[in-house]
Amino acid sequence: MTTTGPRFSLVVQDDLRRVEQQIKGIVQQTAPRAISPMLAHALEVPGKRVRPTLTLLASRFGHGVSDDVVLMASAVELLHLATLLHDDTVDAASTRRGRATLNAVWGPHVAVLVGDYLFAASATQVCDTKDIRVIRRFAQTIMDLSSGQILEQVHLYDSAVQRLQYVERISAKTASLFATALESGALLGRAEEATVQALASYGWNLGMAFQVIDDILDFDGDAEELGKPVGEDLANGVLTLPAIMLLERYPESDLIRAYFSDRSRKDCLAGALKIVRESGIIQESYVEAMAFRDKALRSLEELPDNAERDALQEIASFVVKRKR
Amino acid sequence: MTTTGPRFSLVVQDDLRRVEQQIKGIVQQTAPRAISPMLAHALEVPGKRVRPTLTLLASRFGHGVSDDVVLMASAVELLHLATLLHDDTVDAASTRRGRATLNAVWGPHVAVLVGDYLFAASATQVCDTKDIRVIRRFAQTIMDLSSGQILEQVHLYDSAVQRLQYVERISAKTASLFATALESGALLGRAEEATVQALASYGWNLGMAFQVIDDILDFDGDAEELGKPVGEDLANGVLTLPAIMLLERYPESDLIRAYFSDRSRKDCLAGALKIVRESGIIQESYVEAMAFRDKALRSLEELPDNAERDALQEIASFVVKRKR
Repeated sequence: MTTTGPRFSLVVQDDLRRVEQQIKGIVQQTAPRAISPMLAHALEVPGKRVRPTLTLLASRFGHGVSDDVVLMASAVELLHLATLLHDDTVDAASTRRGRATLNAVWGPHVAVLVGDYLFAASATQVCDTKDIRVIRRFAQTIMDLSSGQILEQVHLYDSAVQRLQYVERISAKTASLFATALESGALLGRAEEATVQALASYGWNLGMAFQVIDDILDFDGDAEELGKPVGEDLANGVLTLPAIMLLERYPESDLIRAYFSDRSRKDCLAGALKIVRESGIIQESYVEAMAFRDKALRSLEELPDNAERDALQEIASFVVKRKR
Repeated sequence: MTTTGPRFSLVVQDDLRRVEQQIKGIVQQTAPRAISPMLAHALEVPGKRVRPTLTLLASRFGHGVSDDVVLMASAVELLHLATLLHDDTVDAASTRRGRATLNAVWGPHVAVLVGDYLFAASATQVCDTKDIRVIRRFAQTIMDLSSGQILEQVHLYDSAVQRLQYVERISAKTASLFATALESGALLGRAEEATVQALASYGWNLGMAFQVIDDILDFDGDAEELGKPVGEDLANGVLTLPAIMLLERYPESDLIRAYFSDRSRKDCLAGALKIVRESGIIQESYVEAMAFRDKALRSLEELPDNAERDALQEIASFVVKRKR
């Protein structure tokens, strides 16, 4: 667990420590003791705590970090961890960031249920803020996250998926939680409505950039740095932006279609990966990610020029530059 | 879907129809169209709608059924349906009440995610009541339901499970939602606090009776009426009250332990089932269920003598007499 970490989190370092305590506290709060080891395992996934950092920063555009803001920031991270748990279970993943997944240790049955528990634990924390708008936003976000994941499952090995469906999917599965992290921080900090809207818009665009970069790294990253094989999305039948661009640019190329209809055709898969990497599609995908980053930065322009705004700008740069 | 049904639901028949509309409405409200068929499938599980009936009845001990109460009643049923979905997925069940399960049709991956979506959809509806106490109760109930299910998974094939752990487990996995169905109906109906408490207590005891009967029927029911083989719980490693009584009464008998440590020993399983059925354990288990029913009925004594109270009494009788 990183409480130190990238420079942008320095602004909220002390509050992030409170968030860590709150997250760890879930294990002790649990009524049935038998569940504690699973929860502890689920909560120990290392991470940069980007989402709670965003919530904490957003609150400081109003009255700043209160107990409610800390609750909200940790709820946002708990929700993120719950979705990772269900994702890993759905994907039957055995490791994440070098650690055995919960489903690998206790089986998919327990993993599904511990995920449910964490969804509910995060929602319960949000309830404790007693802010109806924030609570409703959070529940809606869980719907968005799951519908984004369902869309991904529904369109597996479907080579007809288009750019608009991709945008709909990543908006639901990723950008929605980034937007909510900021919006709820600003709301609980009692920021002005225009500020709330600006931060939510920053969050949504940041989330979109984040996911596009994630999808680019799957084609272009370093397997060792990523901790997973390159080209995994396409190999697993998930069409992301670079692959969609390949299909748009070379409509006559049958590599992806051939692999999707016969998954023993690893040669076609390798061929598609090669074209994506050598045709300028990666660069073009970066342009898309940068466009989202720029929109995120523009949303910040109307906000006061302070350390928090600097940190948000830095996060936007970090997101598009990261290698994992 | 049954809107007509047992006699006790006659009192709230018209309101139950509104609940059905609200539940069906979830499919249309969904943003991504691709998800609609799965939701429709999940929501079409036939049922007696016992839980929403309880919410509607409870509200009538205050100001009666408002739009918020209808939202709440349908949320309670949605939550129930979401847990069925995850249960079926965890159990890899292929049918429920004679229909193919969602996991059988679309696979376990989609089923997990559609369950998540329904959890969130139910919570979102509860948020729309804007009643913080009700919303928090509901989120806590989702934690209870999942921890009850986790406890069941954790103790699979564990012959050391005792009566107290059984009570803890069924309280979490079943009674909590019954209690919440009534408590939230009463709260949203603005009933007096003593009435809210009495109804919550009725609900908890009713839920306990309901689950004990469920567990008895698994040993003593008719396979055809149940729509599943007799003795399934024990065969799957779940110790319920009758099996725990067997272990208590015949500590020297090794049938269950032998089967749990070597699941090819179907003879031991069959032997255990036979003793449970022929030793008076079934009758003794019914005594336990009746004790919960009686406590439920006693909780009603302080309430006004009206058609709603009659209906709740009838439900308590129905729950212990049912054959499936």
